[in-house]
Amino acid sequence: MSTMSRPRGPVTRAVPPGDDRERATCTDCGFIHYENPKIIVGAVVLVLGGVLLCRRAIQPRRGFWTLPAGYMELGETAEAGAQREVWEEARARVDLSGLLAIYSVPRISQVQLIYRAHLSEPGFGPGPESLDVQAFAWDEIPWESLAFPTVTWALEAARRAPVGALVPETNPPGDGADMPAGACGDE
Amino acid sequence: MSTMSRPRGPVTRAVPPGDDRERATCTDCGFIHYENPKIIVGAVVLVLGGVLLCRRAIQPRRGFWTLPAGYMELGETAEAGAQREVWEEARARVDLSGLLAIYSVPRISQVQLIYRAHLSEPGFGPGPESLDVQAFAWDEIPWESLAFPTVTWALEAARRAPVGALVPETNPPGDGADMPAGACGDE
Repeated sequence: MSTMSRPRGPVTRAVPPGDDRERATCTDCGFIHYENPKIIVGAVVLVLGGVLLCRRAIQPRRGFWTLPAGYMELGETAEAGAQREVWEEARARVDLSGLLAIYSVPRISQVQLIYRAHLSEPGFGPGPESLDVQAFAWDEIPWESLAFPTVTWALEAARRAPVGALVPETNPPGDGADMPAGACGDE
Repeated sequence: MSTMSRPRGPVTRAVPPGDDRERATCTDCGFIHYENPKIIVGAVVLVLGGVLLCRRAIQPRRGFWTLPAGYMELGETAEAGAQREVWEEARARVDLSGLLAIYSVPRISQVQLIYRAHLSEPGFGPGPESLDVQAFAWDEIPWESLAFPTVTWALEAARRAPVGALVPETNPPGDGADMPAGACGDE
């Protein structure tokens, strides 16, 4: 660790050659940190006339219910990422049956890709980031204890379209670029 | 600039506390470079029974024809990003009419969101990254001179579904995680 008092790392904002906007750069080594929106991948897993929800073991919104979802990683397809997240958070193996919804959350520069899924083998349970995983019937979903607005939106979309081809939902009208503070996906 | 010979910047791979995979970190300042897939946003712009294509002024694939598309930026919705890219590369103002296709290109860790669009006001022309912009009738598209496989796929999807609600296309069967070398979106 350095004892120098000036900032270190990519903390200086400058327009790189050939670019048209400022990027965070490191004045020590020249590293340019191109930041772009991140992709959240996840699924509404339909089981027994209801849906799998995970109770969050981590902040933000610890203790609230969410869909199994998280950051897409390098080298995977969006579909494989959604299946991986369902396994990591809900210990369920699933097949996907279409893109249910795509939500933009520009305040935190996220795009969320939510798939519709079904169990490919029996069983589910909490992964390390979940306190609990339960299958809720539609009329038992804890609507007041959901972690994020996009969880509510995706559940409503899945309830409207439990089978058949999907025209993916997007942000509700008027709620696109203006999501309330506190709305976010996994950190 | 440093005269030290050891590597600088986030070039050392290590698993950060609480994480489960290696990330590029800087041993000088502790900066962790979380790299995730990047999002390409773009559009098939339908005009006069055909489609707008841009001839690339930049590498890779300079001189080949492509859709107006590029990296989504922080703080915008996917839709706004697609409209911005159409303006930057094809100097066209467009309205979007649905998500036409979502392609994963895991070899280069991209997700491409391609919308169907129509001109909202007359006119188009080359932006700084395009040598030329032309409206091609479907039977005049230069199929042999397209820049990337995903351009071909998106044009075929748009030709099949020029109007109405869209179930977004995904990678063709067997071509998902195995895109041939040289296939990529904008660099």
